[in-house]
Amino acid sequence: MLLTLYLIAITAEAMTGALSAGRRGMDWFGVVLIACVTALGGGSMRDVLLGHYPLTWVKHPEYLVLTSVAALVTIFIAPLMRRLRSLFLVLDALGLVAFTLIGTMTALELGHDYLVASISGMITGVFGGILRDILCNDIPLVFRRELYASVSFASAWCFLGCTYLELVPIQALSITLFGGFLLRLLAIRFHWEMPKFVYDDR
Amino acid sequence: MLLTLYLIAITAEAMTGALSAGRRGMDWFGVVLIACVTALGGGSMRDVLLGHYPLTWVKHPEYLVLTSVAALVTIFIAPLMRRLRSLFLVLDALGLVAFTLIGTMTALELGHDYLVASISGMITGVFGGILRDILCNDIPLVFRRELYASVSFASAWCFLGCTYLELVPIQALSITLFGGFLLRLLAIRFHWEMPKFVYDDR
Amino acid sequence: MLLTLYLIAITAEAMTGALSAGRRGMDWFGVVLIACVTALGGGSMRDVLLGHYPLTWVKHPEYLVLTSVAALVTIFIAPLMRRLRSLFLVLDALGLVAFTLIGTMTALELGHDYLVASISGMITGVFGGILRDILCNDIPLVFRRELYASVSFASAWCFLGCTYLELVPIQALSITLFGGFLLRLLAIRFHWEMPKFVYDDR
Repeated sequence: MLLTLYLIAITAEAMTGALSAGRRGMDWFGVVLIACVTALGGGSMRDVLLGHYPLTWVKHPEYLVLTSVAALVTIFIAPLMRRLRSLFLVLDALGLVAFTLIGTMTALELGHDYLVASISGMITGVFGGILRDILCNDIPLVFRRELYASVSFASAWCFLGCTYLELVPIQALSITLFGGFLLRLLAIRFHWEMPKFVYDDR
Repeated sequence: MLLTLYLIAITAEAMTGALSAGRRGMDWFGVVLIACVTALGGGSMRDVLLGHYPLTWVKHPEYLVLTSVAALVTIFIAPLMRRLRSLFLVLDALGLVAFTLIGTMTALELGHDYLVASISGMITGVFGGILRDILCNDIPLVFRRELYASVSFASAWCFLGCTYLELVPIQALSITLFGGFLLRLLAIRFHWEMPKFVYDDR
Repeated sequence: MLLTLYLIAITAEAMTGALSAGRRGMDWFGVVLIACVTALGGGSMRDVLLGHYPLTWVKHPEYLVLTSVAALVTIFIAPLMRRLRSLFLVLDALGLVAFTLIGTMTALELGHDYLVASISGMITGVFGGILRDILCNDIPLVFRRELYASVSFASAWCFLGCTYLELVPIQALSITLFGGFLLRLLAIRFHWEMPKFVYDDR
């Protein structure tokens, strides 16, 4: 089940990456690269920071093919994208929670403690989007819109709580997926935001 | 002594990171993340480039807690910050030299030669600030104001010189800390700058 | 032969990096750092992603000296640079193909398959320039001008094709170098570009 979610997630993230590249008028090669970085960058960052080799896309190069194809498809169906916006937000929410779960579990399997595991989950969840925004020369959106990194953080701790309570893995996964997904959708619907810190020293 | 300095340094760097994030109006989560990257990013970059695992914050997750708390405290005492500016410059100067020393010693312990050790020290000293500026979408300040990277480089070579002369570690540390700290403060006071290279090909 | 090409390539790339830093009015330290990142960043990125330690410049710190000297020389001969522009485009084209070949061969030697090897070649070829543009706060140029990343990709697959056909290494190298170099020069001469994806959702 998690693998299916992962494949949906990298496809959806690749498509948001391709749209970002399109907003900057990049060529097709750039579109494919930004799509791959958005979809696989969070996991790669986690693996590099934890020294967990080989990286996912080195072990499974077919994921690179999947994200590249998703990027090229996005180019052709771009005019449809406006109408699919809500579908995207849903897929992206699913992806965020799925990425976070995978990152959290990876760190636990490597024997790290809960705090590091939650950071690992959050890096996996949000860093693809951060790298996308850096490459497109934007201020990372992650920290400026509705609850996003916080949903990732909350999902990681929800899963860790379930693990601590020794729930069966499938239960822990389902509860976290449902809870994190719902939290993200509610945040979008009601524009829940973290308080902002505005500092002006001039 | 170096550990105490290190803790002061990551706290001070976390606070400068939080202020940068505040200038961009990020939410609290973004503030905490930028603070952690500023404080721990230089050391992480060094460890990833040298293949030195586990990273500091993976081994000591309590440092993440310290930098996060420092970031949140910064949010609440921000109005005070203007008056504390000189204190900050002093702490930041101490931190720069302490980070550089730690980076240099880490590379020596791993068996690298002097040139690589000095680069390792400089990466540890200045890369946190560079990553902060990239995430906040600024041109890294490090290369545009008073001697900063150069102080780091000079400190690394001062320590390596002391090591070469076979001074006792505590002497080498003290001389470098004092010398580097003084050099940085003098550079701020008298606006010492590296010459700039301005190239316009249009 | 490849080593000679590599040395020419890192020198040429260091000089383009130094010019970029000069356009942003950075100080000499910044110029040297941007030059080193431009010349050695692609290979470092590849080695970190593949877990291939030690990195090139850790093993051969003399390359850092070479790129630093190239950067400093650039500062002094900058007024000449305008007239040398075509020489630079030629050296840069050679460097792109040489970097790509080295990256592709490194991945093959580590036992990776053709797809990962071609990605490894492309990362080595183009990431130095991408990092340069990120540090200088530009949108990476790589994806907005004449065929560049595509030349790298095509060169990688040309070499892999020769390897598959079991040509002698020297033949595979020569064919790829000549082909990739010619393709890049033709692309510059006739302004061949990848189609662009322009998406505007406002």
